[in-house]
Amino acid sequence: MAEPTKFDLPESEIPEIWVNLLPDLPGTPSPPLHPATQEPVGPEDLAPIFPMGLIEQEVSTEPEIPIPDEVRDAYRLWRPTPLYRAHRLERALDTPAHIYYKYEGVSPAGSHKPNTAVAQAFYNKQEGVSKLATETGAGQWGSALALGCGFFDLECEVFMVGISFDQKPYRKAMMETWGATVHRSPSELTEAGRSQAEHTSGSLGIAISEAVEVAAGSEDTNYSLGSVLNHVCLHQTVIGQEAIAQMEQAGETPDVVIGCVGGGSNFAGMAYPFLRRRLREGMEIRFVAAEPAACPTLTRGRYAYDFGDTVGMTPLMPMYTLGHDFVPPPVHAGGLRYHGDAPGLSALVKEGLIEAMAIAQTAAFEAAVRFARAEGIIPGPEPAHAIRAVFDEAEAAKEAGEERVIVFNLSGHGHFDMSAYQAYLAGELEDLEMPEDELEAALARLPEAPALA
Amino acid sequence: MAEPTKFDLPESEIPEIWVNLLPDLPGTPSPPLHPATQEPVGPEDLAPIFPMGLIEQEVSTEPEIPIPDEVRDAYRLWRPTPLYRAHRLERALDTPAHIYYKYEGVSPAGSHKPNTAVAQAFYNKQEGVSKLATETGAGQWGSALALGCGFFDLECEVFMVGISFDQKPYRKAMMETWGATVHRSPSELTEAGRSQAEHTSGSLGIAISEAVEVAAGSEDTNYSLGSVLNHVCLHQTVIGQEAIAQMEQAGETPDVVIGCVGGGSNFAGMAYPFLRRRLREGMEIRFVAAEPAACPTLTRGRYAYDFGDTVGMTPLMPMYTLGHDFVPPPVHAGGLRYHGDAPGLSALVKEGLIEAMAIAQTAAFEAAVRFARAEGIIPGPEPAHAIRAVFDEAEAAKEAGEERVIVFNLSGHGHFDMSAYQAYLAGELEDLEMPEDELEAALARLPEAPALA
Repeated sequence: MAEPTKFDLPESEIPEIWVNLLPDLPGTPSPPLHPATQEPVGPEDLAPIFPMGLIEQEVSTEPEIPIPDEVRDAYRLWRPTPLYRAHRLERALDTPAHIYYKYEGVSPAGSHKPNTAVAQAFYNKQEGVSKLATETGAGQWGSALALGCGFFDLECEVFMVGISFDQKPYRKAMMETWGATVHRSPSELTEAGRSQAEHTSGSLGIAISEAVEVAAGSEDTNYSLGSVLNHVCLHQTVIGQEAIAQMEQAGETPDVVIGCVGGGSNFAGMAYPFLRRRLREGMEIRFVAAEPAACPTLTRGRYAYDFGDTVGMTPLMPMYTLGHDFVPPPVHAGGLRYHGDAPGLSALVKEGLIEAMAIAQTAAFEAAVRFARAEGIIPGPEPAHAIRAVFDEAEAAKEAGEERVIVFNLSGHGHFDMSAYQAYLAGELEDLEMPEDELEAALARLPEAPALA
Repeated sequence: MAEPTKFDLPESEIPEIWVNLLPDLPGTPSPPLHPATQEPVGPEDLAPIFPMGLIEQEVSTEPEIPIPDEVRDAYRLWRPTPLYRAHRLERALDTPAHIYYKYEGVSPAGSHKPNTAVAQAFYNKQEGVSKLATETGAGQWGSALALGCGFFDLECEVFMVGISFDQKPYRKAMMETWGATVHRSPSELTEAGRSQAEHTSGSLGIAISEAVEVAAGSEDTNYSLGSVLNHVCLHQTVIGQEAIAQMEQAGETPDVVIGCVGGGSNFAGMAYPFLRRRLREGMEIRFVAAEPAACPTLTRGRYAYDFGDTVGMTPLMPMYTLGHDFVPPPVHAGGLRYHGDAPGLSALVKEGLIEAMAIAQTAAFEAAVRFARAEGIIPGPEPAHAIRAVFDEAEAAKEAGEERVIVFNLSGHGHFDMSAYQAYLAGELEDLEMPEDELEAALARLPEAPALA
């Protein structure tokens, strides 16, 4: 039999800690600010909507944070996830590069999102919360939180962006199968929703505002976010830790680590454990963040303080942003249509430790179809962007005649995104342009705040 | 950490042989007959549509058949599949039973079907065939063969039952993503299709007739079937062999093995390796086949010679049948809506070595939703029937106060069947009745043939 294809770890190798990269970040990280006072937000500002266990993680400077047994126990339903060597893809691309992918699509929700959903559900349950409210766009995050709440006997209330609610009834059915309640956003249930009633198709920003309002207004309900925040990126670092152990099994070290970026959590989850090795042990690894050309936060956004939501209910976050009310064109990679990025990740891009590149939608799907035909798995539209970047890297390796080792995060499958493939195969998929004038207008509406270094 | 949940095998443990149960079957198996002569069919009758490699397997009396390296190499993309101990489900059911499930949904097509699809594609490729034609109902088999053909550079032409073609565009997109061509059946492309044009919604029987006609009429095109035949059941025995090794890891032996039955291949794949142990080593294991109450082949059908397709193009097969032109009510478990059953499996049921039970649709979904909330994975409607049978067995164990060990085959996920869950959760799912009068009429139309013992 040929060289190994699949690198599995036993369940005893599920990581026992999360990797907190905060203490490794270059310089002093800029804190989130209260929009009214422009002072750093404190735990008391966040306590109405987050449990203390997560708030502590959000600001912790401990390099490692232990994973509670109850969370590891839930992880065992799908973790450790497999790492594959893409032999067939390498042959199809005729590249000397060695391509590895970590496959997070084996989770019941089909993506990496449950890694943080079960952790968030656990900490909320521990502090006596009985319900979590959240938003979801295409449905990946809503399904993951529905699953996580189910495991810890919490109610789950999801505000789903109107247009997705209409177009993706099956994601809704998935959330309901796991016991969640799903509302079309903008809804009549919140002031934020009623104030935005004219935006009938909704937006992620409006849905966030609705969920935050529900959480802030109820004693026993908290809010839960699926990306961007430090504690979310932290929970995802199980991915990279497993990948390090699996690459050791494979007997190779990566030259480049690649992932797609929306809010940044799947990328951070894969990259941070490797990044720590680069920062502390001088391991030579490049990091490439692939974002959609239609929502090019890292490559075209401004590094500035901005709100996390559209209505302006969140603290001001130091990050790359396209402006909190910028509405990206409706590319199929719904999970990458976010105006901002995780502050930690933004700082690393600013420092040049992570390279960013923008990928056009059709180029991403062209790569995804080639990947599916070689490796079998049909990727979600989000990791399709990472795959496109991998192809470029493999081509560069071929031109350089180098046996470059590429590792990427295949963050989820595309089973609920087949309409996008249908459009691509029918030649009906377009490269949606980033609207320059809208970007400029949105950047002009950035809130007043101190400039970032 | 608690007792182990997941039992993985390294890829070196992918089975090296398929288990051929034919030599173990009690008595002398009745051969398939040529419908015109009523003589046993020979290889020459099958050669126009199957490669000799598969025809030899169809009639082989060797107890073990080696798996070619090329097939094992393709298996490595998803095999070995995990075996899980369902700790959370056991707690939810409050049962002393130990419940294990083998999860075949990790394959790229989402079910056990690729186990035979890649093998069939390989043997056809080896004999110079350039295209495979097949039928598909809900789309599980069509997707698996599209995937398999892609791996071995074969064209793939799928006749998809009309009503599914209309209702399941995403399964079609999946097949096309892997490079297959998909036609709505009945089509204008074949005589069989044109002759059945009035049945606009199509049927599996008609689609089979179309695919067989295409294969029979072309030198370089063969036909491929996703269940029922000996060689198909044979290829699926990788499932049971892995499960035996994984149960050894778990340190337990099953008291009962459960699976759902449509044509019988996922059940056979799980059960046959265990059955050999029962037959040869006297291991005490019960076997339970769960079929839909709306298509109750094993529990209500006749044990007789019948055609495999509606139009009557196939040999006469010795099996439990509801009549070759019986059209089962449209339950969501499309993969279980077949009028017949694998001849080997039928013989084992006839001999009392396998118990059969019929499950109502809503009872299956009620169990599937409870399973999903406990274990995360959302089952396909087909294995939902097996899960219902597992619940009954777990309840019986509780009543008996026994630590019964139950192993079942979770043959696939339900990601492409969420409309069925939607209907169930909305209280709109009905228990479709098996039409008694149509059954009687269909049985009266069984072809003339020798009686079976």
